[in-house]
Amino acid sequence: MSKQIEKEFLEYIQTMDAYREASALIGWDLRTGAPKKTIDKRSQVISILSKVHFEMATGEQMKSYLEQLSGYRGEQDMLEDILKECGLEFERMSKIPADEYKQYVQLQSKAESVWEEAKDQADFELFRPYLDQLIETNKKFIRYWGKEERPYDALLDMYEPGMTVEVLDEVFGALKDEIVPLVKRISESKKKLNTEFIYRHFDTESQRDFCLSTIKELGYDLDAGRLDSTVHPFATALNANDVRITTKYDETDFRVAVFGTIHECGHAVYEQNIDKALEGTPLCTGTSMGIHESQSLFFENFIGRNKHFWKKHFDKLTAASPEQFDRIDLDTFYEAINESKPSLIRVESDELTYALHIMIRYELEKMIFNGEVSVDELPELWNDKYEEYLGIRPEHDGEGILQDVHWAGGMFGYFPSYALGYMYAAQLKAAILKAIPHFDELLEKGQIEPIKDWLREHVHQYGKRKTPREIIQLATGEDLNPQYLIDYLKAKYEAIYEL
Amino acid sequence: MSKQIEKEFLEYIQTMDAYREASALIGWDLRTGAPKKTIDKRSQVISILSKVHFEMATGEQMKSYLEQLSGYRGEQDMLEDILKECGLEFERMSKIPADEYKQYVQLQSKAESVWEEAKDQADFELFRPYLDQLIETNKKFIRYWGKEERPYDALLDMYEPGMTVEVLDEVFGALKDEIVPLVKRISESKKKLNTEFIYRHFDTESQRDFCLSTIKELGYDLDAGRLDSTVHPFATALNANDVRITTKYDETDFRVAVFGTIHECGHAVYEQNIDKALEGTPLCTGTSMGIHESQSLFFENFIGRNKHFWKKHFDKLTAASPEQFDRIDLDTFYEAINESKPSLIRVESDELTYALHIMIRYELEKMIFNGEVSVDELPELWNDKYEEYLGIRPEHDGEGILQDVHWAGGMFGYFPSYALGYMYAAQLKAAILKAIPHFDELLEKGQIEPIKDWLREHVHQYGKRKTPREIIQLATGEDLNPQYLIDYLKAKYEAIYEL
Repeated sequence: MSKQIEKEFLEYIQTMDAYREASALIGWDLRTGAPKKTIDKRSQVISILSKVHFEMATGEQMKSYLEQLSGYRGEQDMLEDILKECGLEFERMSKIPADEYKQYVQLQSKAESVWEEAKDQADFELFRPYLDQLIETNKKFIRYWGKEERPYDALLDMYEPGMTVEVLDEVFGALKDEIVPLVKRISESKKKLNTEFIYRHFDTESQRDFCLSTIKELGYDLDAGRLDSTVHPFATALNANDVRITTKYDETDFRVAVFGTIHECGHAVYEQNIDKALEGTPLCTGTSMGIHESQSLFFENFIGRNKHFWKKHFDKLTAASPEQFDRIDLDTFYEAINESKPSLIRVESDELTYALHIMIRYELEKMIFNGEVSVDELPELWNDKYEEYLGIRPEHDGEGILQDVHWAGGMFGYFPSYALGYMYAAQLKAAILKAIPHFDELLEKGQIEPIKDWLREHVHQYGKRKTPREIIQLATGEDLNPQYLIDYLKAKYEAIYEL
Repeated sequence: MSKQIEKEFLEYIQTMDAYREASALIGWDLRTGAPKKTIDKRSQVISILSKVHFEMATGEQMKSYLEQLSGYRGEQDMLEDILKECGLEFERMSKIPADEYKQYVQLQSKAESVWEEAKDQADFELFRPYLDQLIETNKKFIRYWGKEERPYDALLDMYEPGMTVEVLDEVFGALKDEIVPLVKRISESKKKLNTEFIYRHFDTESQRDFCLSTIKELGYDLDAGRLDSTVHPFATALNANDVRITTKYDETDFRVAVFGTIHECGHAVYEQNIDKALEGTPLCTGTSMGIHESQSLFFENFIGRNKHFWKKHFDKLTAASPEQFDRIDLDTFYEAINESKPSLIRVESDELTYALHIMIRYELEKMIFNGEVSVDELPELWNDKYEEYLGIRPEHDGEGILQDVHWAGGMFGYFPSYALGYMYAAQLKAAILKAIPHFDELLEKGQIEPIKDWLREHVHQYGKRKTPREIIQLATGEDLNPQYLIDYLKAKYEAIYEL
């Protein structure tokens, strides 16, 4: 009997996964080249498929499986993990009344289009009532979950399971204490980098060829993925054998495509290397947003912005656009691609200042959900924090608080993942160095395999079968520790800016 | 009460259509660039979605709707047509035992891969047992449907509703009586066409530009479609606002892409111009394979191979590949693109001999289902007919009976659509000429709108709300009449070959 239910449940899971995969393909298609007139009808299709998926995940049938299989400790320990994952999702969703959740989804959709207009017009007032409702709805959900004691932790947990304000305050505090003064020292340094050549013409086709050959060398399997071009680059895992990435080509700034593609390649290599036994289950994906971002940032910064990597690739890049790099040597190039300069826009910021952008939004989100700030006060507070941490102040909300779409989509608690990923990446890098001391030498030779193997063994393979914390502990022998990122940034930027 | 059921049924239909659309997108993606390693998992997804769609179309719920709404004559006469369409599908599928149908689907899938190997090795024996089973299964289905009196009509009806052997024998007979002698006269004619320039280099990018601008001018809406490149070109309607086409570029034969793209464009313009009120219902598609093919062939031959069309486009084409067309004038070009020469391969054949290829397979299929031939005898019979109708004989089955995939997919009764489409197209052209006597002048000016409007009004808009026969009768004032095609071919080829 129990065997029969196990089998049925696993088939049920596979069916749910088919709905997810079909929706993911539709999403990819809409973002990469679907004809524009198809949007209305295709949205209906998505909504029909999502509704079925949602009912399967939160309805009576799932409840019955969870009850019948509760306390399962079978030979297949994978099933245990699947049950746990489904149970968490069921718990979370079944506590929210269906009509309230439906209203919330409609609110998100409306808020995203209003946000777009508000951003264009730099008019926070337009967006304010929607933001207010989104926040209130999330607060209500937190009460339904019975987590009003630590409201922001409940949100963090959705993106980074187990993460808490207590931990973030500590690690972000340590990071801020070191980065803010370092940024200031750089802004006062006499060293001027030559970056002019970056903005010279580099044609799209040549950029694409370079990107393709590079990600291939970095271990991205093009037989299990593809590279397209979009305005907003992304990686999406339809399944572990179909992980697609996109990039954006700027003919007057090759960094956009080169580092953007390497970044998405990091996400994709993670998904491509999850244990294939997890295929078709909810465990077959990255364990958290933070660990995901650790992989993309590892590839982008610890490989892509490493001088040793360019010892191998510089000639290939310059050959693709010879006039542009005329009389530019590797050192000049390396410094230029690592220039640090406070900027107002997160997605345009550099490796050093990036974490500060994240911390500002983290601090605001925390205040919002602790009831320490009203929505009206947010724009001013945002601007003050930019002045304090980065020494610059937005002139309007379009380049300030309205710059990112996340809040319009109700994604509170998501932002810290970006900075967490960065700290995880630095900590993993230090662990890899112990196992593979000749890391830089491998980059110089283009022999990425041992590094990729290490990441697969310690991070990728597990999918969702380990928590972020378990992964970091097992891979590095300790809990999250911001010191690795601090040491890395200090050493790197003090050298570049001769501080 | 009845209102409530109508509403529920229409929602049910929309949900079924969402499954169809999602599967269609997956199909498009698999054929245009999905990574090869995704195929196994994606096939599972398709099979899960198809199963749900199949159960919705043939299960208890559909049965209940059909019963509750039977004899419906409401204000919405569209609903009547939807019920009729669903009823036909339900009748057809519910008479086949589910496990037999499942086995048949597996047989098709296996047979297609065996066929591929058999074709490559030119070894009919490999494929023979599968073909035998496919035929026997179809015969069994025909018995389940109670149509063993006229077995082949039952198959024809699936692709061309209402079409019968009686009609086909008559029209194909008339056509054959005229084409076979005409082909012979051409082969004996002294006129030699200059076709050498066709095989000179024409680069892909320029071909693509030409094709894109041409289909745009022909009324293909690129905001409701897209053009990609594939080995086997096709058109697929995800919905009426998303009808995608593909083409193949051969740098040493521009005709492949130019006429292939115009052909698929004809299919797509049909689907794009179906009445939008039918969206999300099973009526929102071409009424039959034959009418569909009439639209693609109308575009390809009656527009694309018309000299007046090239009076406008010849300069644009030659500008895209100037060396190739050096000292080639419009008359030489027109004759070359209309060269007629018996060939063994259907998809490579010309406008004149094409119908003969179709008739040969029709005659064999008819014999098969009338029990007049055994599978063993087919290859020899095939070769004899090629010799009789086209004056050439295949050297092996790879270029003979094994050339097309259709039989491996169980598609018996499909082939006649190709020739029907051709006859329909010629008959429609004659009707258009009555309404728009300055047809050729419009082509010369690139003013396709009135022609497209006529086709929309008389063919496209109806979707499946009219049968092929109704469409032809209403649009042309008479039943299918092969004389229009005969007259067209004779006039055209006697002029070109100066007979």
